[in-house]
Amino acid sequence: MRRFPPAIQTLVNAFCRFPGVGPKTALRYVYGLLTWTPAELEMLARQIHELANKITVCPSCYTYTESGVCELCQDSRRDSSLLCVVEVARDIATMETTSAFLGRYFVLGGTINPMEGYTPDVLHIRELLKHIGAHPEINEIILAFSPDVHGETTMHYLSKHLKATGRKVTRLARGLPTGAALEFADELTLADALRGRRET
Amino acid sequence: MRRFPPAIQTLVNAFCRFPGVGPKTALRYVYGLLTWTPAELEMLARQIHELANKITVCPSCYTYTESGVCELCQDSRRDSSLLCVVEVARDIATMETTSAFLGRYFVLGGTINPMEGYTPDVLHIRELLKHIGAHPEINEIILAFSPDVHGETTMHYLSKHLKATGRKVTRLARGLPTGAALEFADELTLADALRGRRET
Repeated sequence: MRRFPPAIQTLVNAFCRFPGVGPKTALRYVYGLLTWTPAELEMLARQIHELANKITVCPSCYTYTESGVCELCQDSRRDSSLLCVVEVARDIATMETTSAFLGRYFVLGGTINPMEGYTPDVLHIRELLKHIGAHPEINEIILAFSPDVHGETTMHYLSKHLKATGRKVTRLARGLPTGAALEFADELTLADALRGRRET
Repeated sequence: MRRFPPAIQTLVNAFCRFPGVGPKTALRYVYGLLTWTPAELEMLARQIHELANKITVCPSCYTYTESGVCELCQDSRRDSSLLCVVEVARDIATMETTSAFLGRYFVLGGTINPMEGYTPDVLHIRELLKHIGAHPEINEIILAFSPDVHGETTMHYLSKHLKATGRKVTRLARGLPTGAALEFADELTLADALRGRRET
């Protein structure tokens, strides 16, 4: 295998850390970047730099934000009686594409998966219970996790603890085929699953 | 569609310019980056910045390099009687994975495709002829282009001009790829494979 100039090779190694990217795709991206102008590369470098500096976590719902409390938490038009609990911040974007949900969100930060170190105490479960305690207006909690093994475990665990708070606890309808990833669901299926949510 | 924080949205737009990357994949990459430490993001930004500053084009073969004349052109162990002409610098890496070629390379910078503005005068064709003129030790020129419509056009054009230099001009064999089914081979490939048959 040919040795590339170090500036190319180090960037290939960096892109290999992107989800689903192997050495061939990474090399393709770097050769793509080499056709950009220095000003465009400069801009990309600055944007990545700004990601580190500007993005913080919303102290209320734990999604990514630039402005302390995120805009979804600040938006007074959202229905604060509905709270949708998702695995990661990315899932909010996926849910929002359906336009079928107008409530608020809470990011759990993962699913229960003890083999990978995701035990209940490293997730935002304590914070979720505190959040619900501080918001008596919430009367339904929707658990919007992927219906795979870790998602199911997490929903089972959460529903046990959340029912104790006296709120209605629901989950997305099984419109999603078991084993599918929430991220790749199309809007229609997801909207249907949201409408058909049922009490756990 | 939800509006993301600007720092996320601008980076999604930037990643959409990567070859083969759409908005969903771009968003996945950005959310991937959000799990990196600030130091790691800093490092990635610096590496992209350095790509703009460090990488130049080899004045002899037009591949990317960090050190004036590239290491392949400087390597005295390479056979300077063989010159392999490729479309883009990336193809050198692909050829080198075979370990079957020990000669030198020349990057044409594209294939002839007038609809997209790639006319013969914007490619390094003049430079190629000059390069061959300056290197009388070259006795075979291998045209290693993809056998698609633009590659074939380019090889046809080049071979006409290169034969006038009195050197041997060859192209990669067309045949069945390893693992292919004879049943699904197209007529051109199969006819070429038959013509190029060799004793086992």
